[in-house]
Amino acid sequence: MVKIPVVKDILEVNERIALENKELFDKHKVLVINLMGSPGSGKTSLLELTISALKEKLSIGVIEGDIQSMLDAERINKYGIQIVQINTYGACHLDGNMIRDALPSLNLEKLDLLMVENVGNLVCPAEFKIGEDYKVMILSMPEGDDKPIKYPLMFQESSVLLINKIDLAPYLGVSIERIKNESFRVNPRLAIFPISCRTKQGLEPWFDWILRRYKEKMNAQS
Amino acid sequence: MVKIPVVKDILEVNERIALENKELFDKHKVLVINLMGSPGSGKTSLLELTISALKEKLSIGVIEGDIQSMLDAERINKYGIQIVQINTYGACHLDGNMIRDALPSLNLEKLDLLMVENVGNLVCPAEFKIGEDYKVMILSMPEGDDKPIKYPLMFQESSVLLINKIDLAPYLGVSIERIKNESFRVNPRLAIFPISCRTKQGLEPWFDWILRRYKEKMNAQS
Repeated sequence: MVKIPVVKDILEVNERIALENKELFDKHKVLVINLMGSPGSGKTSLLELTISALKEKLSIGVIEGDIQSMLDAERINKYGIQIVQINTYGACHLDGNMIRDALPSLNLEKLDLLMVENVGNLVCPAEFKIGEDYKVMILSMPEGDDKPIKYPLMFQESSVLLINKIDLAPYLGVSIERIKNESFRVNPRLAIFPISCRTKQGLEPWFDWILRRYKEKMNAQS
Repeated sequence: MVKIPVVKDILEVNERIALENKELFDKHKVLVINLMGSPGSGKTSLLELTISALKEKLSIGVIEGDIQSMLDAERINKYGIQIVQINTYGACHLDGNMIRDALPSLNLEKLDLLMVENVGNLVCPAEFKIGEDYKVMILSMPEGDDKPIKYPLMFQESSVLLINKIDLAPYLGVSIERIKNESFRVNPRLAIFPISCRTKQGLEPWFDWILRRYKEKMNAQS
């Protein structure tokens, strides 16, 4: 009787494919951001604002991950950039293989920044690398200030935490300071940017963060 | 070379265990509700209000599902009812086996209603039966009105949709009518209750729904 470690195998195979994706992105000097967060946290709104703000400085592409529907891709499509829709048909996260399958639909030669919107889920996407340079997460204030304690893996894996919907703060019993403190306890190296995609406040530090990471990648030895 | 259908097997094994759980609950005439929703949608707040409202009429127990932490169980514990905490340590949903393991810690003889709070996740919990009579989902208005289209399985599997945080409606660009219409398109048999756990509005129809289901279960042939 042989015990087959299925989960470990799946994650190991994924790790290898993600690394191959990353090598390809590095070769073409494309900065890749894996954007994760709960359903309705504001991932697509953040993408729209980021594209609007940076499209003169960077050539941007988007991969949209959804279980089904093309709603988010339709919202992004009006910006006239490279975009690929992945429908997972049930799967609760993107993985390396799905990204690899999307690559033939992108012209990497012409891209500086590829933003991948993962499936709305605060749990599973954090476990699967896709070939990204950075994982970035977005948490909206109505989700509550106990989330870093309850869903720590995503906070640990992410380089940036965007705290969205701060315009709703007056109407919620939620403390932005507690979100920050609990997040730093889980991951002291997090860059935290409080923002509102609705009022557009607080977004400049996020745009600057992307531009700095892009510059670093251009200057890195390939 | 034999192809092993891993996912199907897992779901089939789970189905069998969930059925055994359900037979045990039926034998003891315990109404079991599997409460699902995104992180921060308001599951624990709803539990607290439901316990407060119904504890004189029904003997209530709670199983709290969390990846880690006991925060929610501590919130419920002050009501002096039977409560079991399940920590999944990474798993993004509860399954039949986890509930079976929790059963020795509950006195089913003394329970009328068992409410199971699933892990905060709009995707995976919908795939796994645990032995419940009904799946109930809670969606909060800040999550947006496109969620039935993007995460249809949970809307299809649920008997009740609670639309929470309607007190925030004036500050959001979200239509409660669109949530209702899109939800009915995915599942025409849904009972939909717009509520606010913060202002306590709209909760009576939900309490009535539970009492009616409890009465039905008591009157059913066992």
